[in-house]
Formats: sequence, C-alpha cells, structure tokens
Amino acid sequence: MSDQQPMRVAMVGLGTVGSGVIKILFEQAERITRRAGRPIVVESVVVRDPTKVRSVNLADDLIDTAIDVIEHPDVDVVCELIGGTTTAGDIVRQALQAGKHVVTANKALLCEQGDELFQLARELKRAIGFEAAVAGGVPIIEAVSQSLSANQITSLEGILNGTSNFILTEMLDRNVSYEDAVAKAQKKGYAEADPAMDVDGTDAAQKLTLLAQLAFGTKADLKQFPRQGIDKLDLADLKYADTLGYRIKLLAVARLADGSLELHTQPTLIRKYQPMADVDDAYNMIELEGDAVGKTWFSGMGAGQMPTASAVVSDLIDLAVGRAQKTFPLLDLWQSQKPLPILPADEIKRRYYLRFHAVDEPGTMAAVANILGENGVSIASCIQHESESSVKTSPKEPKIVPLVLMTHICTEGQMKAADKALMECSRIKKNFLRLPIRD
Amino acid sequence: MSDQQPMRVAMVGLGTVGSGVIKILFEQAERITRRAGRPIVVESVVVRDPTKVRSVNLADDLIDTAIDVIEHPDVDVVCELIGGTTTAGDIVRQALQAGKHVVTANKALLCEQGDELFQLARELKRAIGFEAAVAGGVPIIEAVSQSLSANQITSLEGILNGTSNFILTEMLDRNVSYEDAVAKAQKKGYAEADPAMDVDGTDAAQKLTLLAQLAFGTKADLKQFPRQGIDKLDLADLKYADTLGYRIKLLAVARLADGSLELHTQPTLIRKYQPMADVDDAYNMIELEGDAVGKTWFSGMGAGQMPTASAVVSDLIDLAVGRAQKTFPLLDLWQSQKPLPILPADEIKRRYYLRFHAVDEPGTMAAVANILGENGVSIASCIQHESESSVKTSPKEPKIVPLVLMTHICTEGQMKAADKALMECSRIKKNFLRLPIRD
Repeated sequence: MSDQQPMRVAMVGLGTVGSGVIKILFEQAERITRRAGRPIVVESVVVRDPTKVRSVNLADDLIDTAIDVIEHPDVDVVCELIGGTTTAGDIVRQALQAGKHVVTANKALLCEQGDELFQLARELKRAIGFEAAVAGGVPIIEAVSQSLSANQITSLEGILNGTSNFILTEMLDRNVSYEDAVAKAQKKGYAEADPAMDVDGTDAAQKLTLLAQLAFGTKADLKQFPRQGIDKLDLADLKYADTLGYRIKLLAVARLADGSLELHTQPTLIRKYQPMADVDDAYNMIELEGDAVGKTWFSGMGAGQMPTASAVVSDLIDLAVGRAQKTFPLLDLWQSQKPLPILPADEIKRRYYLRFHAVDEPGTMAAVANILGENGVSIASCIQHESESSVKTSPKEPKIVPLVLMTHICTEGQMKAADKALMECSRIKKNFLRLPIRD
Repeated sequence: MSDQQPMRVAMVGLGTVGSGVIKILFEQAERITRRAGRPIVVESVVVRDPTKVRSVNLADDLIDTAIDVIEHPDVDVVCELIGGTTTAGDIVRQALQAGKHVVTANKALLCEQGDELFQLARELKRAIGFEAAVAGGVPIIEAVSQSLSANQITSLEGILNGTSNFILTEMLDRNVSYEDAVAKAQKKGYAEADPAMDVDGTDAAQKLTLLAQLAFGTKADLKQFPRQGIDKLDLADLKYADTLGYRIKLLAVARLADGSLELHTQPTLIRKYQPMADVDDAYNMIELEGDAVGKTWFSGMGAGQMPTASAVVSDLIDLAVGRAQKTFPLLDLWQSQKPLPILPADEIKRRYYLRFHAVDEPGTMAAVANILGENGVSIASCIQHESESSVKTSPKEPKIVPLVLMTHICTEGQMKAADKALMECSRIKKNFLRLPIRD
C-alpha cells in the first residue's frame, strides 16, 4: 500500500493544534502511512511570523508566509488551523476553488459560513473534514454520519464545552466561587483570558447547531433557541441541586418533539448517577438516541492540543484512504429531507428549577405558589433553609431568605409569564435564577 | 445519488437479528437510500424452514432454502446471520469465493476462523463488515479502525457481555442471588436457556481477542490469557466490594505493558464513580486510551434485536457507499506490524480482592498475613465481620467467618502461589475467591 502516491498537505496556522498535528505526522509517520495506505506528507506550513519560536522544529523550506502556496499543484489537502472566521473563510474558499480538499477544526467558521462552504465543496466535488470542530477527542461527527447511519437520531444531548464543565466541577468539588474556578481554568489553559464565548454558552450552541444539522438536516440560527451560560450560577445553586439529587451541567439539546426540532443550550439539572451527570473536568459527553440502536454515549476530552490534533489527523487519514470523499456528499447537510421546523422556545416543555431571595414572613410561600399556579406552573419540591445564608438587613426589616423550587412539567411560555409575575412581586427581592431540569 | 445501481443483499438466517435488519431496510428504505447513496435491496433470504411463522412478512419469492442463491450474479453482499461456526464459516467462504462482500454479526466464527476468513477476503479483494460482532449498539469497530486511527491505542478495557452485566446489576440492586438474577435475565431474553458462554466469560473473551487484534495487530488465543466468569460470585462479594468503595464488573482488558500485550477477562473490582463502574443492566462500555486522544468512552446496548440490526445495516451502508472496501484492506488484522508478545499471565501486575471462610480464633489473621507476606503479597485493607454470615457449626467447633482482603500490587504469579498456600492452611475452610482490582 505504501508504494502509493503520498497525500500532500498544506497547513495554515501553527498554533497549539497545528503543532500537535505536526507532532503526530512527523513522529508517527510509519503508523500513519500504514493506517492511511500511503504517506501523508506536509508540503508547507503557512504562518504569519516565521521567526516565532514554536514547540515543533520545522525545516525552513517548509515554512511559508504567502497564503497562495495552498494553491500549488503539489498540494492535495489544505488544513485550516488559524481560527477566526474572516481570513479562515477566505482560505477555505481559496483552497476549494484550487481543487483541494479541506480539513478544519474551526467550529465558529462552520457555524457562520458552513452552509456556503459545504455547498461550494459539494459543487467542486471536494470534501471538508471537520471532526475536530466539535468535541475534539470524541469522534461524534463520524458517529452521527457513519456509525449510526441506519438510525434516525431522535435525541442528541451533550456536554460540549469543556471549559464550562471544568468550572462547574471545580466549584462543587473544591467548594469555590465561580470567579475562583474561572481563574483556575485560565491557569490550567482551559479558559482564554476572555472566556466569554465558553461561559456564556455561545461555543456549545455553535457546536449544537453543527451536530443538529448533521443529525436532523435542519440548520438553526443561534438566535432561534434558548441559550444561557454558566456565568450566572452561584456555588449555592450547585449545592441546592446536589441536595435535590442533581448535578448542574451546561447541556446542549437537540431532539425531535412532535415533528419539530427542540433546541436549547442551558445549564441544566441532571439527575445524579445518570451518565451525563458524572462527566467531570474538561471532558465532553454526547448522548445519542437512535430509533434502532437506542441510547448510546460517547465521551472524551473536548479540547486540548493532542485530542484535537488526533481528530484532525483522523480526518487527513480519511481523505488519504478515500473515505471522506465518499462520505461527504452523502451527509445530511443539504436539506435532502424536508427541514424540520424549530420548536418555538415558548412551547418547550420541561421541569424547572427556580432560585430567588424572598422576604421571610408569613404568606410569602403562598404568594409564590399563587403566582406560579395562576400561570399553570405547579410546585414539585421546595427548599427553604433558615441557614447562614439568611441575611438580616436591620432589626426593623424582615429577613431575606433564599427560596429554591422545582416545578412539574410546564412550557417555557408559562414559566416566562410566571417569572415576570414573580419579579413584580414585592416579597421577592433579587437573585432570580431559572434553570431547566432533565430527569 | 439514488439513481445509482442498488446494492443487492442475500441474507442467510432470519432469526432475531435478521428480522431486525429486514425491518430497518424495509420500513426505512428512503432513509437508507439517502444515507447509502443508492437503494439497498434484499434479493433473497435463505432460511432452513420456510413455513416457520416469523415476526416480519416477506414475499414468498424472497424466501429460499438453497444456500447456493448467495452465489447468484444479482447478489453483491451476503449477510451471514445464522450464528454457529461450522455452517456459517462455509457460507462466508462460499460467498467470498463467489465474489461477494460479507457482513456478519458472528463473533464466535470470527474468533475461531477470523484469520483465515479475513485473509481470504483480502486475497479476493472483498470486504467483511463485522461491526455487529462486538458490542452491537456501540460502534467500537469503527472507533478503533477509523475514528482513532491517528492513535496507537495503549489500553482497551470493556464491559462486553450484557448478560453478565445485567445479572450483576440485578443482584446488587434487587438484593437477589446469582441464580435468581440468571432466571430474571432468561425471562427478559438477555440470557439463553444455557447461559454458560455468557457467564463463564467466553463470550467477552472472544470479543476481546477481536478488538485486541484490531487495536494491536496481535491475534491471541483464548487459552493464552486469564479468563474467569461471574458464575462463582456471591451477592456477598458485590456487597463487600460496595463497602470497600467498588463495583464488580466482568471486565475485558487489553493493554500495552512494557512492549507486551496484557490480556484478561475477569470479574474485576472497579472504583465507584469511574465511568466503567456505573454501567448498569445490559449496557456495554469500552474505554479506549490512545497516545494522542487520551481516554475516550463508548457505551450503548451490547446486544438485542434492533441495536445489533443497527450495526449490521450500518455495515451494509458502508459497503454501499464504498467505504468498507477502502477500510477493510487497511485494518491491523494482517500482522502488518510485528505482533506483540502476550504477557505471560504470571507476570500481570495488579491489586487483588480475596474472599474466603476462615476459622474465627486467635492467630488466623496472623497466619493469613504470614502466608501472603511469604509470597510477596501485602495487605492493603481487610473486612472481618462478626455478622449474620458467621456460621456456628457446633458448640465444640470454632465459628467460621468470612474474611475479605484487598492486597497491594503484586504479580499474578505471586498471588497464585499465595492462593495455593492459603488453601493448604487448616484455618481456611472453603469458598475461596480471588478477583483483580482496577483502581
């Protein structure tokens, strides 16, 4: 096999992931050749600053600064690893138009311009590999598009943001505040200096739209579904949930609901001892339910240099073998089925966790229960502690206590109306938080 | 795409799995055509008794009793779903020699004759799909041979026998004996009338050898590594393990150990809250560790009609798309790397759980500790209850009590010598059980 023509790769970007890819291709060349049926050779690496000191040593003649080398006839595949969306999008278009296949780890790019890029690749009979774009170390793109191809996926739920999961694990396990946990995540390299996209749910929601498009053939916009980050959670919430028998995880959900597609990315209470509740640290997990296979779980590191590089190299191997060229045109990315309508947010049905501070005096609980009842929401359980967290403001004023409620199933619309009425109630003071529950 | 030539399948066997395959191919024809890029058509179904009432309705002209129809020029793929090894082996050989690709769910066949059949397929440039042969609903063959192809797998550990896992879960959760749990498994259809192959570890060991060959390129014989079933476990052991912070699972292990391949299939104590410890009922889980990706987990139903049929149909789709024809010749089934030596059982190093009944009199623990110490085994923890399980045989004789020990790391060889010495000790009475521990 290895006497076949090598597959020649131009890499754009030599940051963390790029260096990892180089490390695997160079150090494990014999293994990669065996798995790919032919050598995978790095033809050139395009970087902005060739003088920068890097963690991998490359011969000077491999390094280039002119992007046009990706069009060279000696290049078969372009590996886009610079991140961002503007330049990255131009590079992918340029590569496809020059007749190259593309491998990318760039979920933001695919979320923003995926439809156009996928369509362009399809027209030009080229393939885009993007296993590394979602949950790096978890081969979930392959699972959805190949392994479970006999199934209609009926539900896809995932912990897709390792940074958020690390922060939540750290808070509960080490009994530290959100801010301290974020600082630790930054120190460990899991969170960027500005972790906004991770902790506000954007990153997980982007990954969800990609997975949902693959699994259901429906392209959703981030504005079309509820998205909530972990940045409003208190350590106290994780502890209340624990008392109630739950863990809180940033959960991205796409599932069939009466012919519509239900989508949301929110911190969610998950009953303890369910597989998804036990995923800790920076790990990711995706639970897929198929109409034939039933429930399946896929878990591994969601990001990091080598897990992501592993996914990029497996995409390169798929191209070298010729699998990707056969799989890509058959993906459910082209609305080959009638796209499902997205379930309006107000119609999403589930249980909810409510936490707020209220005045500790007779009639408060009755007032809260009345407001909920008037909006069609009924209470399933409740925690009201007379604990150290009760704040006595002054001898004259009544104490303020935290109140935690879990509801029975209701719609998001009913819950929203109830929220509004609760916040208008003079007995409820502040710190209002509402999270969905997954039983 | 769907104007391409259909792929025509001859099925042999229409039992549980075969009926499931028919159900998916017939009821979901539009979906399968879309995913496969062309229709997958059932050309004929070979059965022994055409008059038998079955759960799927097939037109009479599809049903055949003569095996030679698999050689018909209109057949592209033969799907072997009869089980057993003698006739099944002949059918696979006949199909390959007639130029057909093969899909099989038959792990016993592949374990016994896999080398010969894989080699034959390779020579004839045909592919064998066998995703359904290991952990039906878990796409582990694809994970090892494609998704993680950038990695050297360093460790592969799995709960591969759903029947055993169901029995162990049932015993601990419902507080029932081994025998009662087996009866329940039979009632639910998880266990055969004779569940020997499941509960004695043979089934899991067969699956392990297949996975090990794929992941490490080394073909092991069942006689070359320790194999132990769950049939000697008492409910008491599950409870002792629980007290010590562990679950007992039938765990199949293949891992690199200093240039050798360590293999074993044994009921194993797994620390609670590790993903593998929480796999309940008839679910399977495989934990794969790769040198780039780190740890990953794959879980789902290990058997059952529709999960297994899902795997068979995904193999058919891979053939229709043309992926399987490209992947199969590149699998690590041909000792393309120098095969790893199998670590001699006596050199396997781990901790152990020991349980036996001993005489409750001064000096017993000292005698046990001495015997272990003389064999290089040191005690890490111990349970000795004065509980209801103590049996007072007669006023004159001393009481017999169960003694449970956990050791520090030692070799299987040291432990075997210690076993022998313990069993020769007059203070130790009966019911000797030793299990490995995975921390």
